[in-house]
Amino acid sequence: MLSVHLESGCVQVRRNPLPRVPDGFARIRLLAGGICSTDIELQRGYYGFTGTPGHEFVGEVVTSEDQGWLGKRVVGEINLACTECDWCARGLGRHCPQRTVLGILNHPGAFREFFTLPLRNLHRVPDSIPTEAAVFIEPVAAAYEILDQVKIPKGDRVGVLGDGKLGLLIAQVLQVHGARVHLFGRHLDKMRVAEKAGVAIEAVPAKLPRRGYRWVVDATGSREGLHSAVAMCEPRGTVIMKSTVHSVVSIDTAPVIVNEITLVGSRCGRFEPAIRLLRAGKINVQDLISDQFPLDRAPEAFRLAARKGVLKVLLRPL
Amino acid sequence: MLSVHLESGCVQVRRNPLPRVPDGFARIRLLAGGICSTDIELQRGYYGFTGTPGHEFVGEVVTSEDQGWLGKRVVGEINLACTECDWCARGLGRHCPQRTVLGILNHPGAFREFFTLPLRNLHRVPDSIPTEAAVFIEPVAAAYEILDQVKIPKGDRVGVLGDGKLGLLIAQVLQVHGARVHLFGRHLDKMRVAEKAGVAIEAVPAKLPRRGYRWVVDATGSREGLHSAVAMCEPRGTVIMKSTVHSVVSIDTAPVIVNEITLVGSRCGRFEPAIRLLRAGKINVQDLISDQFPLDRAPEAFRLAARKGVLKVLLRPL
Repeated sequence: MLSVHLESGCVQVRRNPLPRVPDGFARIRLLAGGICSTDIELQRGYYGFTGTPGHEFVGEVVTSEDQGWLGKRVVGEINLACTECDWCARGLGRHCPQRTVLGILNHPGAFREFFTLPLRNLHRVPDSIPTEAAVFIEPVAAAYEILDQVKIPKGDRVGVLGDGKLGLLIAQVLQVHGARVHLFGRHLDKMRVAEKAGVAIEAVPAKLPRRGYRWVVDATGSREGLHSAVAMCEPRGTVIMKSTVHSVVSIDTAPVIVNEITLVGSRCGRFEPAIRLLRAGKINVQDLISDQFPLDRAPEAFRLAARKGVLKVLLRPL
Repeated sequence: MLSVHLESGCVQVRRNPLPRVPDGFARIRLLAGGICSTDIELQRGYYGFTGTPGHEFVGEVVTSEDQGWLGKRVVGEINLACTECDWCARGLGRHCPQRTVLGILNHPGAFREFFTLPLRNLHRVPDSIPTEAAVFIEPVAAAYEILDQVKIPKGDRVGVLGDGKLGLLIAQVLQVHGARVHLFGRHLDKMRVAEKAGVAIEAVPAKLPRRGYRWVVDATGSREGLHSAVAMCEPRGTVIMKSTVHSVVSIDTAPVIVNEITLVGSRCGRFEPAIRLLRAGKINVQDLISDQFPLDRAPEAFRLAARKGVLKVLLRPL
């Protein structure tokens, strides 16, 4: 079977044998995979990654000891927890210190014709969600994670910084939740995607509003994003950190302390609310798809995905 | 009257006329002032400060339109709020954008024979609290602010980093609250002050425990403190930032985001709980006093206060 392989900055397509299926796992045939910023970072070698990436996917179960899963269209939680430690017992397998992570940490990813995941990680995709939309369940879950971490009252104003894929999803998810979202980005054309969902959009002004929002989300992916977000946040307000930056960030802690601002690191989320939102058709994801490529053209797909202004690039089976 | 004056790094003692008393203000005679790390920073010019410092004080009201205050021993909240803006209306005058701050921002401080504060800022000192203890009400309030911001369940383990004055107070306040505090510092002799209150103390080991605490307080005052605090914090845990560092701090945001850690900036607090704790005799502050000087020896007092290993230095009237 074909699989995408990252090594030393290169994207290759290799032929590999079918992966074996451990007890409790399913073998899954890829229907669509989404290239995420993290995948681009893995390619660049930021985490010393070598192997098959891919954690945003829709697939079809082809092998499973539980016959009920066979032929089902699924998405899957990306953290493979040990199920036995205190973290897992508390329902926080996403933070299990022994976990592996699909396509990121010690578990080969979904950018290949067939891959494996534990059955307990799988969620059925409702028939009403097309595959091209379902591939966004994982990033929509990451956006929704914010609402699991902080209680944003309906009607509250939220400033979102960054008009990349995640910023556009976060802006929409928070708007649908009932917040009044103001999205700041560099590309009005990209931001139109969120505008359709009712988000107020604004090209980043020379001077961002200061102390203007009780809630600010940094989804810029840039080293300066956190600094801007803190400056935009009112005293006693909350900045949600959604930008994993692959280098050390400089921050002036004085305004954080003097204004008693809370910074909340935020990562993956539960799939259930993401599936619910996509089934309700409330998040515009179709407009986020920039292009689609078959697996054997993965090098080209990665090149395109890394270009400025490009949103989601999908990988498809041959 | 004598007043301490900071300018270009120098500590001088000057003679000034008595300060006039605006409507709603009291004139207060200094009984004791505490030199805080912020005062040392003001001397070093970090905030472009020139003038009379001093915000930790105990005084006696000598002039007041409200006769009830005359002769009373008082402490005072240091933020002079406008009382009219939205922040003040929400009871958050400490974050009023128009505020001045005693001895820090546009309101001359308490290190002089007589100074002024609005009557609404004052709190009577109960007779049972000696003046040398009452001078700690302001920093104890700053320590207690943590408990106003985050809900630390009784019995939870808390790691406190830093054995300076504030770290020793924070460790005690959290221990008295019912947390199990583990204080890490460089000076066992200083930490004995908190040990008397039941705090477990430990000289900073070569390798601090990783992911060991759900709650970590950074009171190091150093640029490295935040990094260490994040590393010590378990996933989904909280780091309370109590170190105002006068320069930009470098932080690796990846562990904050991947482990979904919350960082909470924390500054001044309400005086009521601090008065309650000191009246109950539950916080060991007497052992925090390194020395006392009359006002006219303020330069010497500041020199001593800036020395490593020295805790609280008090200024007294002649």
